[in-house]
Amino acid sequence: MDAKMMDAVSADMMSMPGMQSMDMALMQACMDACAACEQSCTVCAVQGMDCAPASMNCADTCNTMMRSMLRMQGMTPASMMAMLDACIAMCETCEDMCLPHAETSEVCKMSAQACRACADACQALKESMAV
Amino acid sequence: MDAKMMDAVSADMMSMPGMQSMDMALMQACMDACAACEQSCTVCAVQGMDCAPASMNCADTCNTMMRSMLRMQGMTPASMMAMLDACIAMCETCEDMCLPHAETSEVCKMSAQACRACADACQALKESMAV
Amino acid sequence: MDAKMMDAVSADMMSMPGMQSMDMALMQACMDACAACEQSCTVCAVQGMDCAPASMNCADTCNTMMRSMLRMQGMTPASMMAMLDACIAMCETCEDMCLPHAETSEVCKMSAQACRACADACQALKESMAV
Amino acid sequence: MDAKMMDAVSADMMSMPGMQSMDMALMQACMDACAACEQSCTVCAVQGMDCAPASMNCADTCNTMMRSMLRMQGMTPASMMAMLDACIAMCETCEDMCLPHAETSEVCKMSAQACRACADACQALKESMAV
Repeated sequence: MDAKMMDAVSADMMSMPGMQSMDMALMQACMDACAACEQSCTVCAVQGMDCAPASMNCADTCNTMMRSMLRMQGMTPASMMAMLDACIAMCETCEDMCLPHAETSEVCKMSAQACRACADACQALKESMAV
Repeated sequence: MDAKMMDAVSADMMSMPGMQSMDMALMQACMDACAACEQSCTVCAVQGMDCAPASMNCADTCNTMMRSMLRMQGMTPASMMAMLDACIAMCETCEDMCLPHAETSEVCKMSAQACRACADACQALKESMAV
Repeated sequence: MDAKMMDAVSADMMSMPGMQSMDMALMQACMDACAACEQSCTVCAVQGMDCAPASMNCADTCNTMMRSMLRMQGMTPASMMAMLDACIAMCETCEDMCLPHAETSEVCKMSAQACRACADACQALKESMAV
Repeated sequence: MDAKMMDAVSADMMSMPGMQSMDMALMQACMDACAACEQSCTVCAVQGMDCAPASMNCADTCNTMMRSMLRMQGMTPASMMAMLDACIAMCETCEDMCLPHAETSEVCKMSAQACRACADACQALKESMAV
C-alpha cells in the first residue's frame, strides 16, 4: 500500500479506543499479505482442482480482512480479533487443500505459500494486539 | 435462496467430513440473514453517519459468510466456526454503532435489526454444529 | 429487498440529477435478479466444470451491480449505463458457458436461467433510463 | 502481482479465442492500478464526505475488474470490453466526486489520482485489444 495513504490510515487510528497500540508496520504487512493471498487464491480457483472452493472462500475472506484494516474506524478490538482468527482459519484450510497439489501445480504451490504467509501475518498482528 | 438450488447445496454436504449433521434449514436461514444484512448495511453506509465504516465492514463480512455457506466444499468445521464467530462479532459491532441513531434514522434502525438477526442466525447455526 | 429499506433508497434518488425518472419497481426487480444470480453462479462455480471462471466473474459483477443500485448517490446516468452494459455482457457470457451443461447439470441449468433473468432485468432498467 | 503467478495467468490466455494478442504487460499494469484504486477508494469512503458512495462503488468495481483479469478463462472479448468501459466510467465518476475535495483532503487527492490512473490503464488495455 502507498506510504502516504498508510499515513492517513495510521493517523485515524490514534483516536480509537484500544487501537492506539496497534503496530502499523505489522498491519501494513498483514494488508499486503491479504492482498497477495486474494490474488493467488483467485488464480488457483480457476484451475478446476478440488481446492477451488477453499481458494474462493480464502480470496473473499482475505479481501474482507484487508478492507477491514483500511476501515479500522468500524472495528473494535473484539471484532478485529475475531476477524483475524477467521482469516487464519480460512488460510490454513486453503493451505491444507492446496498442499497435496504442490508437487504437480506451480499455482497451488504459490497459493499454499501465500496462505501460509497471510496466516502468519494475521497471527503476528493478533499477538501485537494482545500485549 | 431458491429451493432447488438449496437442494444442490444440501446434496453436496452429505459427503463432507463433519458436515453431515449440519442443519440445512438453519443454514438457509443464516444465508438469508446474511444477504439481508449485507443489503441493509450497504444502504446504511451511504448516509454519511459515523456508523458507516462498521456498516461497510459488516456488509463485506456478511457477503463472505453467505458465499462460504454456498461453497461448503471449501470449509472445514474449524474454519466454519471461526467464520461464524467473526460474523457474529462484526454484526454486533455494527449493531452497537447503529443503535445510537435508531431514534433519528429509520435506516440505522433497520440496519441494527438486520445485524441482530444475522448474529442470532449465525449463533443458532454454530450451536447446531457444536452438538 | 425489504420494502421499508427500498423506500429509503427511493427517497434518496429524488434529489439526484438525471435519476428522478428511474423506475423504482424495475430497479428493485434488477437488484433481486442480481442477488439471485450471484447466489446461483457461486454454487455453479464449485462444480469443477469449465463454466466456473465465468460463474465467478458473473457472481462478482452481479454483487457490484446490486451494491451500486443501493448506492445510487455514487452513480451518474453515464456510469449506471456502463455498469448495466457490463452486467448484461457478463451474464450473457456466463449463460453461454453454462447452457452446454444444462442437460446434465441441474445447477448449470438454474444458473443459466438466473443469468438470463438478470441480463433481462438490467436491459429493462437500462431502457427505462434511456427514455 | 507476483511474476511467477503472472506467468501462470499468461500461459492460460494463449489458448483463449480472441485473447492471444492481449498485451500481458498492459494487463498486469491494469490489475495493479485496479488493486491500488480499490485500496485508495476504500480509505476515501470512510472520511464521511459526499464522495463516499462513489468511492465504495469504485472500490467494488475495481476489485471485480481485477479478479476478472485473473480469471480470463471466464471472459470473452465482448465482456472484457464492456467491463473495461464500466470500470473507466466508474473511476471517472469517482474522480469527479473526489476532485472538489482535493485541496482540503489529502486522501481525496490520492484517491482522485488512483481513479485517473486506473481509468487510463483500462483505456490502454482496451485500445490494445481493439487493434
